[in-house]
Amino acid sequence: MTLRVAEIFGPTIQGEGVLIGAPTVFVRTGGCDYRCSWCDSLHAVDSAHRHDWLPMDPEAVMTEVRALSGDRPLTVSLSGGNPAIHDFAPLIALGKSEGYTFACETQGSIAKPWFAALDTLVLSPKPPSSGEEVDWSAFERCLEAAGNGPESVIKIVIFDDADFAWAQAAHARFPDLPLYLQPGNLMVDPDKPVDLTETTARLEWLIDKVVAAGWFAPRVLPQLHVMVWGNKRGV
Amino acid sequence: MTLRVAEIFGPTIQGEGVLIGAPTVFVRTGGCDYRCSWCDSLHAVDSAHRHDWLPMDPEAVMTEVRALSGDRPLTVSLSGGNPAIHDFAPLIALGKSEGYTFACETQGSIAKPWFAALDTLVLSPKPPSSGEEVDWSAFERCLEAAGNGPESVIKIVIFDDADFAWAQAAHARFPDLPLYLQPGNLMVDPDKPVDLTETTARLEWLIDKVVAAGWFAPRVLPQLHVMVWGNKRGV
Repeated sequence: MTLRVAEIFGPTIQGEGVLIGAPTVFVRTGGCDYRCSWCDSLHAVDSAHRHDWLPMDPEAVMTEVRALSGDRPLTVSLSGGNPAIHDFAPLIALGKSEGYTFACETQGSIAKPWFAALDTLVLSPKPPSSGEEVDWSAFERCLEAAGNGPESVIKIVIFDDADFAWAQAAHARFPDLPLYLQPGNLMVDPDKPVDLTETTARLEWLIDKVVAAGWFAPRVLPQLHVMVWGNKRGV
Repeated sequence: MTLRVAEIFGPTIQGEGVLIGAPTVFVRTGGCDYRCSWCDSLHAVDSAHRHDWLPMDPEAVMTEVRALSGDRPLTVSLSGGNPAIHDFAPLIALGKSEGYTFACETQGSIAKPWFAALDTLVLSPKPPSSGEEVDWSAFERCLEAAGNGPESVIKIVIFDDADFAWAQAAHARFPDLPLYLQPGNLMVDPDKPVDLTETTARLEWLIDKVVAAGWFAPRVLPQLHVMVWGNKRGV
């Protein structure tokens, strides 16, 4: 029942994907079964940071969420690392009883029964540039675990042409799931400012790719938090 | 049946609001019953430009849309000016028969029966900084005309604290309608580059306002097209 919490912060807005722009508090747990080459959250992934991951029970997490939100229900975003390593069932049950809603983003490598209790499940399979390989059977088990509980969507980060072609093939596997594409971010050092011109240029590149392909199924969105706050943590 | 068309362009992405990031072709008609002080589309509003508004019948508009989209159905965004001045019923019927979907953005001052045939209706009542005053009876007639046909949402542009307070009151009138807020853009000259730092600072200002108010109902979104292309037309 104990969660290993890398950080809890907010309220801020969800910066990307289906809930883009929605006020939210993030609960980020530590630990991940992947090591994506371009990971932007290594502080919640690499076990070298594990001593910074605080063991907290669900009531302690909700106490912190309530304090941050001023007791006003909003969307709680479960993130990582891979949050599917953990058992979020008790936290979700507790929060929902108080009117909070829950979104979770995971790569889709580990299915958990509590996916069905979410309001939003974002599955973000990692494209070739990550250096990881997707186990589509595990991915499908995640969708089965979620069932008709949450709105399930796919989000794919695109760094290059190979990722783009891969995303088209992934969409062909799951044509009925809403799909969100976002340009990859290579500037992940929290201490360095982000080049906005470069960030918007990468968004334009991805829009151009989608338009040139005549592929109108996905939404193309940036990471708003990177535009506003760079890679600073806690916002 | 003849539409007065200021411009047809795309595919590009919808840069703002509920369909942010969605590939779309824009059909922008000329003429508007409002004169917002900060209007960013005067070329489709001010009657000084009326000789640039091409009379086109619905079939001619769809011919252009098909050519732009490569005959692949996508969302057609009806914009203006105030598109509700015109009769879009024939265009929508024609496009829907070919698999296209339709979104319309209007201030909500003129109700039309064809609202019910839309997939998405964005009502954007204008806050005090516009210099216009909202007729809420007319606004409600728009919602009634739409009925359960489209997804109806509200979008409000926020320039200052008075606009923000006004948006909170507007939300209290229609608490069940999804609400999208976006920071106002004062840099509307199509020939001048947009200051990205200023644009993201205005987004941060609005996020801070929402968070400080503990008001978690709205989504806060920028104008992506302004970030990527400035105020250039036709993208």
